[in-house]
Amino acid sequence: MTDTDYDVLAIGDAVVDVIAPADDGLLAAEGVPKGSMRVLDADEADRLYARMGPAQETSGGSAANSMAGIAALGGRAAFVGQVGPDQLGTIFTHDIRAQGVTFDTPSLAGDISTGRCLILVTPDAQRTMNTYRGASEHLSVDAIDADQIARAAILYLEAYLWDHAKPRIAMKKAADFAHEAGRAVAFTLSDIACIGRHRPDFTELVESGRVDILFGNEDEVRALAGTDDLDAAMAALAKNVDLCVITCGAEGAMAIRGGEIVSVPAVKPRALVDTTGAGDLFAAGFLAAHAWGRSLEASLALGAAAAAEVIAEYGARPRGELLPLAGN
Amino acid sequence: MTDTDYDVLAIGDAVVDVIAPADDGLLAAEGVPKGSMRVLDADEADRLYARMGPAQETSGGSAANSMAGIAALGGRAAFVGQVGPDQLGTIFTHDIRAQGVTFDTPSLAGDISTGRCLILVTPDAQRTMNTYRGASEHLSVDAIDADQIARAAILYLEAYLWDHAKPRIAMKKAADFAHEAGRAVAFTLSDIACIGRHRPDFTELVESGRVDILFGNEDEVRALAGTDDLDAAMAALAKNVDLCVITCGAEGAMAIRGGEIVSVPAVKPRALVDTTGAGDLFAAGFLAAHAWGRSLEASLALGAAAAAEVIAEYGARPRGELLPLAGN
Repeated sequence: MTDTDYDVLAIGDAVVDVIAPADDGLLAAEGVPKGSMRVLDADEADRLYARMGPAQETSGGSAANSMAGIAALGGRAAFVGQVGPDQLGTIFTHDIRAQGVTFDTPSLAGDISTGRCLILVTPDAQRTMNTYRGASEHLSVDAIDADQIARAAILYLEAYLWDHAKPRIAMKKAADFAHEAGRAVAFTLSDIACIGRHRPDFTELVESGRVDILFGNEDEVRALAGTDDLDAAMAALAKNVDLCVITCGAEGAMAIRGGEIVSVPAVKPRALVDTTGAGDLFAAGFLAAHAWGRSLEASLALGAAAAAEVIAEYGARPRGELLPLAGN
Repeated sequence: MTDTDYDVLAIGDAVVDVIAPADDGLLAAEGVPKGSMRVLDADEADRLYARMGPAQETSGGSAANSMAGIAALGGRAAFVGQVGPDQLGTIFTHDIRAQGVTFDTPSLAGDISTGRCLILVTPDAQRTMNTYRGASEHLSVDAIDADQIARAAILYLEAYLWDHAKPRIAMKKAADFAHEAGRAVAFTLSDIACIGRHRPDFTELVESGRVDILFGNEDEVRALAGTDDLDAAMAALAKNVDLCVITCGAEGAMAIRGGEIVSVPAVKPRALVDTTGAGDLFAAGFLAAHAWGRSLEASLALGAAAAAEVIAEYGARPRGELLPLAGN
């Protein structure tokens, strides 16, 4: 794909992660299931923050993390997302650009602040996410540049951003631009609760042929297909998408294309510190290798290797060196 | 000291650390010696930030880190410092309070932003600090509460804050309040360049009897005494301060009180990740144990143990559990 400037262009939440160690008692007091993601309003976010321990801040956002991962692997990535006119917006913008990702979305005028994801990391390395989306949900179709999308081999969209009309319209428009330019559209199901809120819309999205590559974990794929039988779910989805990529946690990952099913085991992380970003970095590795024309097996393997690397560090963005993993 | 509410009350920089991995090439391009601390203005800080890689943000400030360390060790700590009315100020305030440190200084009115310390961590785990002090240098005597100072066994002042008249006047006033209440005043020399700028003033401070406990490393103690001979420097300073505590890097640390000299070896860190905060956490361990009435040797040992712990993590504040180190 030498006629492209980017391997992948992603549209997603532009948030800063606020990460703190937490014990199971805080999760219980908040009534939030471990490992889940919930959306908070500004007041709820302030209240939870006041209960959290000393934190560290790093740029986050699921698809943004994936683009940072692609850049760290030596790929060419661009990101579209909405920050506010504040210090957290400056931090998000600095970090993604410093990682080598093209990010040109102007910050939002007005006084809506940059989104934050309050992440509670329990001693078992599990992360529970509490997102105040802020400016992110004000991403509008004006931020979508048809020409830029045409210059990316793959457009990558995250379901997390589906809750609000403005970014939803922007993402659908972007998918149309991508297909008009003959590019592939990838979509990640993001989260089981997200599917609960938008299953009819996601189903329509998939059945209308707008999605070429679908990412999800086993639960998400089953929920979208509306069946407890994973094989049946995979078969149903494979009718509508060219390629379905399913992560299975510690069991590894698999890809289904037509009648072909390929799977790889998980890569054992060098340390079990914080699972935040594991799915995002898996997508990064898979998408980069796929855009480079590698086999499904090689693409899954790079996804698994990148995921293992981020699990061994605190936070959802690569800090160590990912380039050797890419093998270019 | 049961008539106190705090083991230690500190006055110092209220800054957020912006920490990023860096290679020696960036240090060379910036012309900044490895391991040093320099002060930047706002424009210089923005320029350097633009050259830095993806970063993480954590609350910092030398004396503030020490108070966070004391709280993490189970001690009672208070902090006085100046943040601006912005998101970084909110982060600083949250983190130090969440650690259990009393922090009541109101944020600055106006548009001066919270200070930042841009920290470049090279692969050898050394940190090079570039500080834009921001609101910190506007700390005024109005922030000093004589009654609160009287309720702390030890007042701890950092030399870093000496560059500007307002906080310098505030710290001298605080030292007077402490002595009027019969409390001890501790002072850390902070940095060799700091001594270069303020040696006459620091000398006057020590010779006037305003300092009871002096912290410094070997180079700083020699620079203050104006001699290359460490023994001569220690002898000279011991005439004016009750207790002189000297860190010697990998060689450990020692304390001089009257004719008594006690030393301890360094504690080997479980990993060599980032030396940021090592001196701050050493001071935390020493001051906490000293306030608890422990021996010089036990106080040095707790300092060495706390320093080793923070070296094994990224950033200058304790993230892991320090409480077992305290042995209370």
